[in-house]
Amino acid sequence: MKNNGLLLVLSGPSGSGKDTVIAELMKLGLDMVQSVSMTTRAPREGENHGVDYLFVDTDYFTDAIENKKMLEYAQYGVNFYGTPKEPVDNWLSEGKIVILKIDVQGCENIKKMYPDALTVFITPPNMTVLEKRLRRRGTETDEDVERRLKIAIDEINKIPLYDYVVINDELEKAVDDVYTIIKAEQLKVSRRTNILSEVKDNV
Amino acid sequence: MKNNGLLLVLSGPSGSGKDTVIAELMKLGLDMVQSVSMTTRAPREGENHGVDYLFVDTDYFTDAIENKKMLEYAQYGVNFYGTPKEPVDNWLSEGKIVILKIDVQGCENIKKMYPDALTVFITPPNMTVLEKRLRRRGTETDEDVERRLKIAIDEINKIPLYDYVVINDELEKAVDDVYTIIKAEQLKVSRRTNILSEVKDNV
Repeated sequence: MKNNGLLLVLSGPSGSGKDTVIAELMKLGLDMVQSVSMTTRAPREGENHGVDYLFVDTDYFTDAIENKKMLEYAQYGVNFYGTPKEPVDNWLSEGKIVILKIDVQGCENIKKMYPDALTVFITPPNMTVLEKRLRRRGTETDEDVERRLKIAIDEINKIPLYDYVVINDELEKAVDDVYTIIKAEQLKVSRRTNILSEVKDNV
Repeated sequence: MKNNGLLLVLSGPSGSGKDTVIAELMKLGLDMVQSVSMTTRAPREGENHGVDYLFVDTDYFTDAIENKKMLEYAQYGVNFYGTPKEPVDNWLSEGKIVILKIDVQGCENIKKMYPDALTVFITPPNMTVLEKRLRRRGTETDEDVERRLKIAIDEINKIPLYDYVVINDELEKAVDDVYTIIKAEQLKVSRRTNILSEVKDNV
């Protein structure tokens, strides 16, 4: 008995550890895929097409927008970033859990198109911890850190738009929380359209 | 930081094993209480006032109904059964998880009064298993079993009214499922009214 797929939107500020949470989730043996974003920016050292991003040119991207082939997209500077719709729909029809890692604005758009998408905000436990994490990277100037903290606050203020919030204090607990949210979602009556015939087998 | 309490409504046909599921849940160290029903029927051998039921007389019960002190009630034959409102409200204000074991009709009424109550239907995996369980008790005639199976079907047909459905095939799995539902519920943004001030501590 195959249930319908589950679209899981994960957001969280830089330094919330959402990439690590996703990486750990992927190890848990769920039937789960992560959507790969499409971008017009150039690949960085070590980035691979189809793994880190789908790297395309601007014409290709704007055509995709025009032809309604993008689930959501945003422009930062001259570069486009977004989520192609077709692979997501295919995975969902196969019953998979599809992870979309997107920002708050993208989340609002997804929710309009997929009202039963599950939206989860990953947050650092507090701003002190977030600042420490950002400084520990060692690659960012004081200004960068200040800027990232300000953006983080803006994002954290959008938590009320999400279904669930997971505090990433200890990684293992945060991963377990997201796992719990997924497992509970799969027990929802609204997702188990065959439940009546399943139970009333021999009637 | 105390979250608000959680009203957990559990229903399920006779033979679904919901009492055992509840008994196991109570062992898990959650801050959980089970509401004790009030009834006008006489105590049976071994039943204790305040544990199995609050045993009261009919005048007391009908007064309680008149004074809006009952969350829900039903009359079977000459006897009344129902849930007193005050202890439930007190426990919820203390942040506890309050378990109400009630039938489908009671569930609908509760949902009207407490729209954020969490409703879970515990079901046997199928009717063959249910019939085996009912016959195994050894205390019921063929007629009793037939009657219980018919009632069970009526109840199972009401699953779409519930938020979640848990199939009680293996007890441990069923208990774990209800636990998962509770834990996920506690991660809902709508239940964590202090989350913004919690995270933005030093801003």
